[in-house]
Amino acid sequence: MITLSQIRSAATVIAPHVVRTPLLPFGSGWLKPENLQPIGAFKLRGALNALARLENREKGVVAYSSGNHAQAVAFAARLHGVPAAIVMPDNTPPVKIEATKALGAEVFIVGITERVERAEALVAERGATLIPPFDHPDVIAGQGTIGLEILEDLPDVEAVVVPMSGGGLISGVATAIKSLRPDVRVIGAEPELAADIADSLKAGALVRWDPLKRAQTVADALRDEPSALTWAHIGKLVDDVITVSEDEILGAVADLARRARLIAEPSGAVAVAAQAKLGGAGVAVVSGGNVDPGLLARLLAT
Amino acid sequence: MITLSQIRSAATVIAPHVVRTPLLPFGSGWLKPENLQPIGAFKLRGALNALARLENREKGVVAYSSGNHAQAVAFAARLHGVPAAIVMPDNTPPVKIEATKALGAEVFIVGITERVERAEALVAERGATLIPPFDHPDVIAGQGTIGLEILEDLPDVEAVVVPMSGGGLISGVATAIKSLRPDVRVIGAEPELAADIADSLKAGALVRWDPLKRAQTVADALRDEPSALTWAHIGKLVDDVITVSEDEILGAVADLARRARLIAEPSGAVAVAAQAKLGGAGVAVVSGGNVDPGLLARLLAT
Repeated sequence: MITLSQIRSAATVIAPHVVRTPLLPFGSGWLKPENLQPIGAFKLRGALNALARLENREKGVVAYSSGNHAQAVAFAARLHGVPAAIVMPDNTPPVKIEATKALGAEVFIVGITERVERAEALVAERGATLIPPFDHPDVIAGQGTIGLEILEDLPDVEAVVVPMSGGGLISGVATAIKSLRPDVRVIGAEPELAADIADSLKAGALVRWDPLKRAQTVADALRDEPSALTWAHIGKLVDDVITVSEDEILGAVADLARRARLIAEPSGAVAVAAQAKLGGAGVAVVSGGNVDPGLLARLLAT
Repeated sequence: MITLSQIRSAATVIAPHVVRTPLLPFGSGWLKPENLQPIGAFKLRGALNALARLENREKGVVAYSSGNHAQAVAFAARLHGVPAAIVMPDNTPPVKIEATKALGAEVFIVGITERVERAEALVAERGATLIPPFDHPDVIAGQGTIGLEILEDLPDVEAVVVPMSGGGLISGVATAIKSLRPDVRVIGAEPELAADIADSLKAGALVRWDPLKRAQTVADALRDEPSALTWAHIGKLVDDVITVSEDEILGAVADLARRARLIAEPSGAVAVAAQAKLGGAGVAVVSGGNVDPGLLARLLAT
């Protein structure tokens, strides 16, 4: 289990390079707009913490991701002068491949089933270090800095709503909050179509869903599942889960644009959709903003 | 002329009610996203400062505006428990009328040429206080708090780019910045179609443009012109003006959406368009985000 002191240490390390996002009033609650980070997602916090603590820097890092983790590792590696190799599946939108290359990373495009194998091969060939998207204490501690900031800015907060997928974000945030304020409720948010953690919490043990089933949600950054490490945090620290429909997710994207002037990707709006079902109270983490412009245009035009 | 101490005092007064907006990295420069204020624009700062200092509170306030000032005064009046009457022209979009009513203001819809007369009549009938959109020291001091925050967050800032219309925002920001750091450049941004201040600075005296000419720009919040008070600040404190085309303004709205995940209205993106012509450096104030969703959808779809 990660500790409060690991999160406090991460906060010091990443502070010069992340946006200190404010809490934005939103109805009767608040938003924590992590979509405003330089790469458009909270993932930068964990990647920066992991890169800052990296040993064997000259041999570089490897990551596999089609999404925000790819850009987060590329950004953090460039900042620390560390070579980065990113393995991306061949169905990744070209704009995300270009953005990762623009951050100076070496990009390898492979079939979706080959990405772990290729990443492990790169690690072996180069003696490089794999930076996982959530299954690592430094990554979790970096994401946990969001929890510290929420408590600093809103000491009387009652509930924090956090999207869940691999579980790195909520593991970190829940550790920060429960360590300092066990009375604050930490609520996970999941798409109904990828509600494996809701099932797991009901069962009291990690329940696996078929990856093809989880892949159906429009919240494409929430199709992962917890590791043993993140499940250990979630099972112990998360008070409740709220699941949301695809329509509720897209409605929250439109609502954020119209009422908060924020652009969120569907995954980034899942906690906001859950917050609405909670009556609007508490702090919802807007976790990312890398939406397809065409999708946003269609949502705004209706 | 307003003073640094008036701005510092405003900062203390409004702090509990405004978002402390962060600086967001953007290319080689930074954004100050005032579109994230609760009513979607910087105008809240000035209105909150004016309402906090109001005498004769029980007789209420009056404002005339079709735009962000209407909601700013309504929001600030509700917060201070002061009755607010807002006069709006009959071509105001219904969504803005509803938003102003939802903030508890009494709204009067009049022909565009009658709004000053009607507001003055309400002031006379009720003994109420008129809150002007820019021509008032308390309003200017409130907007100036943005300048203090920029210097706090980025002590080595070299240039600040600020949109200009009535001139309240740049008068306040320039006073804060030049008082503390005379070496920092303060640059005004104007649409080419409403570049009366650029002409005035060239002429060394306030030049008036025909209101119908100024009304052509898509930046509908920048169709006003300075008062004697704001011109006194602008003529003394502003280093330079950059004018931008309508295409550059709309391009900046799209750029903010795609690269910064921020929704700006055209007026709110004018300083960003000017910043681009400056090579991307410095801090650009994103002054507002109340864009027509249909316009944004069209810009994102192309």
